[in-house]
Amino acid sequence: MSSSSHGSQSPAQLRQAIRRGEWNKETSGLAPGFVQVNLVILPASDASDFHRFCQNNPKPCPLIAISEAGNPHVTALGADLDIRTDVPRYRVFHHGELVAEPNDVKDIWRDDLVTFAIGCSFTFEHSLIENGIAIRHIEQNRNVPMYRTTIPTTPAGNFHGPLVVSMRPMKAADAIRAIQITSRFPGVHGAPVHIGDPALIGIKNLAQPDYGDAVDVQPDELPVFWACGVTPQAALAKARPAVCITHAPGHMLLTDLRNSDYSIF
Amino acid sequence: MSSSSHGSQSPAQLRQAIRRGEWNKETSGLAPGFVQVNLVILPASDASDFHRFCQNNPKPCPLIAISEAGNPHVTALGADLDIRTDVPRYRVFHHGELVAEPNDVKDIWRDDLVTFAIGCSFTFEHSLIENGIAIRHIEQNRNVPMYRTTIPTTPAGNFHGPLVVSMRPMKAADAIRAIQITSRFPGVHGAPVHIGDPALIGIKNLAQPDYGDAVDVQPDELPVFWACGVTPQAALAKARPAVCITHAPGHMLLTDLRNSDYSIF
Repeated sequence: MSSSSHGSQSPAQLRQAIRRGEWNKETSGLAPGFVQVNLVILPASDASDFHRFCQNNPKPCPLIAISEAGNPHVTALGADLDIRTDVPRYRVFHHGELVAEPNDVKDIWRDDLVTFAIGCSFTFEHSLIENGIAIRHIEQNRNVPMYRTTIPTTPAGNFHGPLVVSMRPMKAADAIRAIQITSRFPGVHGAPVHIGDPALIGIKNLAQPDYGDAVDVQPDELPVFWACGVTPQAALAKARPAVCITHAPGHMLLTDLRNSDYSIF
Repeated sequence: MSSSSHGSQSPAQLRQAIRRGEWNKETSGLAPGFVQVNLVILPASDASDFHRFCQNNPKPCPLIAISEAGNPHVTALGADLDIRTDVPRYRVFHHGELVAEPNDVKDIWRDDLVTFAIGCSFTFEHSLIENGIAIRHIEQNRNVPMYRTTIPTTPAGNFHGPLVVSMRPMKAADAIRAIQITSRFPGVHGAPVHIGDPALIGIKNLAQPDYGDAVDVQPDELPVFWACGVTPQAALAKARPAVCITHAPGHMLLTDLRNSDYSIF
């Protein structure tokens, strides 16, 4: 599958190409208009705590779907979807340590694994772009800069940790418009959690993100901060469950859900 | 009419008390939940230019109603309303110069006068307060600080001039919430026009407003700027029409319209 041929393919076609091993790269820009999700897969013994963690922290952990234990099919996300094969690259953690980055998890699948599909900022970025708001990290062909804050999450069981935020610099008028647009998407991070002085939420240096890449911020711009889907990964790193599988950063699960389904008006 | 007795009165009852000369003070806090409006009254010869000025600049000049020339009744605002008597204090300008501040304009009413009722930030402030957002100038019992900016209005005929903005300082989370709330009210100034650095819109010193009173701004707060209904008054001061009547600052016209009628969701 070439870059030029994938633009018009449906999410289902793309998942099948990924399943066949024909696409193992990042998914940004694939199937525009359709929801891409963060994945967290945990044994049932940890799943109920993690489910409560998502419930307690809906802005960073907007839960789109949850599977039955052991069932690799999540039909709410796609009729044919197989969670074991349909992500371009996975990360496998044992007790919080990264042990592998496979292209499928068929061999290590277990009957007690529960899949959590968590909303991703790609959904609202799509709408920002459609509304003419430039996104710096996309312009600069970088990953979005992300930062650990001093804002705590609400813990559940072993899951706890700081709120992680993504940052997009904007001129004030665009920031106001971006607040309006992302407010339409409460199910995928929603409105920003902070705007302006990074120090007020414990960020010392915008040029040194904790995840992703730094981007340029101009003197006439405000940094705008959204709750970020990396927050559950930070909590997982602290909880150190015996087994955990996630997508590799940027290598998301493509679903049949439309971004517009997550806009409340 | 005492301060203690007016709280439960309807806008129509209050207009009648004003008409009888029993209330000639500011109207802030009267008839909570009902729309108060800015007034501009002009001869028909100037009215069509001013009407286009409002049309061209809807954020600072949100037109709620316009009268027939010479008709002092604006039933869209209140069945019994008489524009000549129902405002606690007026200002009369000749060629842009303030010549009188009467409590009624019966004696100077003319058959060619057109009344413009322009929305007022009281409408969205009511909703901010109901949503638990403190408003500094109300806390400090002052008038809202207002500033001329370097943002031009779109001219119409002789009417032109700078956008005037009102400023409310808020913590970032409240500012984000205030953007959401005021976005619901596109017919009464709507979302802010600027947030953050005042210099970017030509404001040199927040402590020296061009209209109203300065308020305290804390280090962890952002100034949030809304288009302001004083903008048309600044344009009138430049256009210098032969005759113009307005309300005196803070002495608004009480209408039977509900603030909630101006919330789009």
